[in-house]
Parts: sequence; C-alpha cells; structure tokens
Amino acid sequence: MSGTDGGSVAAADLPDFASVRAAAARIAPWVHRTPVLTSRTIDELAGGPVHFKCEPFQRSGSFKLRGALAAVTAQLDAARRSGVVTHSSGNHGAALALAGRLLGVTVTVVVPEGAAACKRAAVARYGARLVDCGPTLAEREATLAELQAGSGALFVPPYDHPEVIAGQGTAALELIQDAPAVRTVWVPVGGGGIAAGTVLACRAAERAVHGGEPALADDAARSLASGERQPPLPPRTVADGLRTALGVRNFAILRDYGLPVTVVSEDQILAAQRLIWQCLKVLAEPSSAVPLAALLAWRAEHGPDGVAGIILTGGNVDLPAL
Amino acid sequence: MSGTDGGSVAAADLPDFASVRAAAARIAPWVHRTPVLTSRTIDELAGGPVHFKCEPFQRSGSFKLRGALAAVTAQLDAARRSGVVTHSSGNHGAALALAGRLLGVTVTVVVPEGAAACKRAAVARYGARLVDCGPTLAEREATLAELQAGSGALFVPPYDHPEVIAGQGTAALELIQDAPAVRTVWVPVGGGGIAAGTVLACRAAERAVHGGEPALADDAARSLASGERQPPLPPRTVADGLRTALGVRNFAILRDYGLPVTVVSEDQILAAQRLIWQCLKVLAEPSSAVPLAALLAWRAEHGPDGVAGIILTGGNVDLPAL
Repeated sequence: MSGTDGGSVAAADLPDFASVRAAAARIAPWVHRTPVLTSRTIDELAGGPVHFKCEPFQRSGSFKLRGALAAVTAQLDAARRSGVVTHSSGNHGAALALAGRLLGVTVTVVVPEGAAACKRAAVARYGARLVDCGPTLAEREATLAELQAGSGALFVPPYDHPEVIAGQGTAALELIQDAPAVRTVWVPVGGGGIAAGTVLACRAAERAVHGGEPALADDAARSLASGERQPPLPPRTVADGLRTALGVRNFAILRDYGLPVTVVSEDQILAAQRLIWQCLKVLAEPSSAVPLAALLAWRAEHGPDGVAGIILTGGNVDLPAL
Repeated sequence: MSGTDGGSVAAADLPDFASVRAAAARIAPWVHRTPVLTSRTIDELAGGPVHFKCEPFQRSGSFKLRGALAAVTAQLDAARRSGVVTHSSGNHGAALALAGRLLGVTVTVVVPEGAAACKRAAVARYGARLVDCGPTLAEREATLAELQAGSGALFVPPYDHPEVIAGQGTAALELIQDAPAVRTVWVPVGGGGIAAGTVLACRAAERAVHGGEPALADDAARSLASGERQPPLPPRTVADGLRTALGVRNFAILRDYGLPVTVVSEDQILAAQRLIWQCLKVLAEPSSAVPLAALLAWRAEHGPDGVAGIILTGGNVDLPAL
C-alpha cells in the first residue's frame, strides 16, 4: 500500500499543521479555490446550516490534485529528473497526471483492470502514460516496482504519504476560512488522505472532525474501535473512492485524534447523493455523498449539533446518457 | 402573454441600466452571489477562456429569483396587501413562490397540465398556492383573470415586465464584476428576460451579448431577422425553458441592440449539456446548455473571438434514478 512495514510509523514521519500550511502555499498557484455552497432544503433536513466545500469543481475533478501537487512540489527537482509513478483506479491517477503536466514532470500511472472508463480517460487526457496491470495488489506492486527499477521514478502513493496528507488538508483550511461559523467538518474515510489532512487542519483551528464510511467498507471504523488497523473488505460499495485499505500514517493520525466514524448503508449513500444533485446542483460522485449520509444518520439519532461543514470530495462519475 | 397590446411598447416602459443597478441593490439581501466557474477542457474546445456564471446554484435553482424579487420589491406594499399571481410551467413559478416567502407576500401560481413534477413540487415547497389549468394560452389567461378579479392580486409575468427584465440583468452585472476579462456574454433566448436584462447590463459595461436559441424554438432569431415579432413554434425542444413566445418589451430591447442569435440543433444542445455536467460538474438544465452550444457552433465557423462569459441559467431537472 505505502512502502512502509504495514504496521507502525515514526511520529517524525507524520505531517502536522505546519505541513498543511506549507503545502497550501506551494500549491496555491495551481489549484482552484473552490466555492462553498449551501442549500436551505438540506439545512432544514439536517436541522441546521451545512456548508459544502465543493471539490468536484477542483481541477481534475477532485481534491486529489491538492495532495498530488503537494507531494510533487516537495521534491520537484528529483521529480523533474526521474519522473513520478503511481497506481490508481481513480481520482489520484488523474490528479497526479495533471500535477505532472502543470509542473513539467513525467507521470506514469499503473491502472488495474476494471477502472472506470472516465477515470482512465482523464489520466490519458492530462498526458500521462497508462500502464495496465491485473486486478490484484501483488500484480500492481510488481508492475510498479518494475517501472521504478527501470527509471528511478519517485512513487507518489494515493494517500499514505506525509505530503499527500498535508495537501489534502488544504481543502478544510479553505473551508474554515470561507465559512468560519463551521464547528464540525464531516469527511469520508477511505484510505484516509482527506480524513487525516482535515484532522490536521481542524485541530489547529479548534474545529471538530467527524468521519463517514460505507458499512460495506468500514475498515476505518473497525480499526479505530479496536485500536489496530484492520484489513479492508471486498470492494463492493457504490462509493468507489472508498474501496481502499486505510493507510498506516493516516490511521496513526486518526487514532491519535480519536476520530468518530458514522457508518452508513448503500441506500443512505444514494439518498444523500440524490439530495446533493437535486438541492446543490453539484454532480458529486457517490464517495462525496458519504459524509452527508453520515451527518443525517448521526443527527437522526443524536439531534442537531451546530454548524456543519462537509468536504464534497469529487465529481468524476461515468455519466449516463442524458 | 404580457398584458400589452402584443405589438409595440413605449420607450418609457422599458427598463435601462439604472433599473438593473437599482434592482441589484433591492434584491441583494435575498440572492446568492453565485460563483463563476471555468474548465480547461471547455476552454480548449472553445479556443479560449469561457467563464460560467452558475445560476443553478441560485436560490430556487435558477436566475428567475432575481426577476421575481425585483418585481415584487418594486411594489412591495401593494404586493403584501393583495398578493401576487403568475402562470408558469417552470422556474418562474418556483422563483416567485420563494420571493413571496422571503418577502411575506401571498403567491398563487397557475400551472398548466404537463409541467415537470420537480417544478410543481418546488412551487408547493416554497408555500405558494398551485392552481391547475388546461394547457392552452386561453385557458391560462382565463384562470389568471379570474384569480386577479377575485383578489386584486398583482400579476408578475415570467419575462415581459420592466422590473423582471432589470432583475435578470443582475446576473450579468455580477459576472462582469467577478470576471472582468469577459468581452462577450452568451445567453439563451426564450421569452427574452435574461437576454434583455443581459443586454442592459452589458451595453453599459461595453461588453457584447450573443444569443443562443434552439432551432426548434427559433422565434427570436426569426423576429430579429425580420424586424417583426414572430409567433413561437410548437413547444418541442428539449430546452423546456425556451418554449415560450418572445416578450414585447424583451423584443424591443433586443431589436434596439441588434442581438446576434446563433441557432443550434437538439444534438448540439445535448452535447453541450453533457460537457457542462462532465467538465464543470454542474447539474445544468438543457436550456442552460444552449449558449455553450451556440458559442461552440459559432466559433467552429468564425474562429475564436476573445474571452467569453456564459450565463448558466438553471439546474432544475427531473433526475433519473441514480
């Protein structure tokens, strides 16, 4: 997953709030400051104001550009010399491809069989090289190792990387600046990049963070409950961006913070996605709907709890015919 | 359509740039300042930068709230005493319903058979009274006259009204403020509310305006070519917001300006809508896609012509199952 030993991580290897601020400064020339939108209808359903940070409008169509840019700009000379590689079936591949194009860095993306057509197309459109591989983790890692051995290219993993985490935290940083009334920021938890980055940004600003996770991919909830990183479930949830194992560094940050995670059903995710489309008019992908589903489920049980922020993470869906 | 004689209109009864600025000041407390979004992919297809003013994010889901608020605030005491009425199969009804709720004015909307379910639901959700009528113009006008006779309520027509036109012009005013590089603003032409309002805002700011219209509803293009207002075609275009007769005041303003109108096919409209969904992640309705379709068609023939702005007018679509 991450090139670590798969279990522990030294505190010195974890990013902090200063890393998020530094990443924000480095990536500022290349990212959109995405708008924060609200809907009265959703406010009424949620029993209070909800501010949506709209990363579907981010370049490459998701927040992933932030982490990709943060990682590449942190080692730009080496990246320009040797190129970068990654594996991705989704938004990280497109984001790294775009980051490479913006920064003059050669990018190779290993894409497993079965990746969504729109996400493959995005990688190619931004000018990166696509290398196919089989669907298993072993095949993916072998292909990656081969590519790195040949070129000396730097590996930019999708989430388990200090600068990637710091970059993802810049979305919450902007949300808090633009909607300072927000007390709790709700994020989806998959690999843990946006969740851990949001924790770093929010702790320093004295805002709470709450995670949402599909019941069909609840390894973060189980990991945090048990205190040990648990293996992921088979990738079955409609929230395709969250079908990943929780990263080692990501878990360390979330466990240290004590992230509460609310688990939601597939029906709850689809209902929340429909609300976002219908009320916000934002074409959010299913993973983006998980935190709203979690907020509505949590409040149905516990009641309102102040002004909420939600990171809408991305909008890369294969569109049906209109 | 408008309570006029159907043909001519006195210059004194037409709004001007001062009307747009006055409307902007009156409605400011109630409207969202919607964001302006861009997409590199669309810029490449269009051969230059295109700035999208995103009125799908406006309250009520379309720019129509601007005109409704402008009309009601212009005669607020009378409206509070007697209520307001309108007819609408679409966004104007929902917008007037919301304006009434915000301003403490009783609203009645006459809705013809066959109106989209989501638009009926929006009128009801904002607390207005719905009155059904048959699909013909005669039935609609008879129902309206009856309601007005009973209550003395003020009629706020969907587009052929000086304050409605002035209110719609505030969207272009904001677009030019937020994206001052824009040289030409592209708008859809249906009844002519957004088109005429945009002309008023843009002339004063020395920006050009260019219209887009479905070939299946090209009465504005034919009216402007002939110099006489032409009857509308049967309502068949997928751009349901544009299946209306051009208003008398609207035509007077567009003819005086000499609005160029580019006519597009249904396929061009659907392709543009798909681009907007896919690249901007904005759930735009088909009418909103008409100006992008027109811009792409015009440039395919004439080449690039500087920085463009587009008013994305609304996002009220009946969603398919996800």
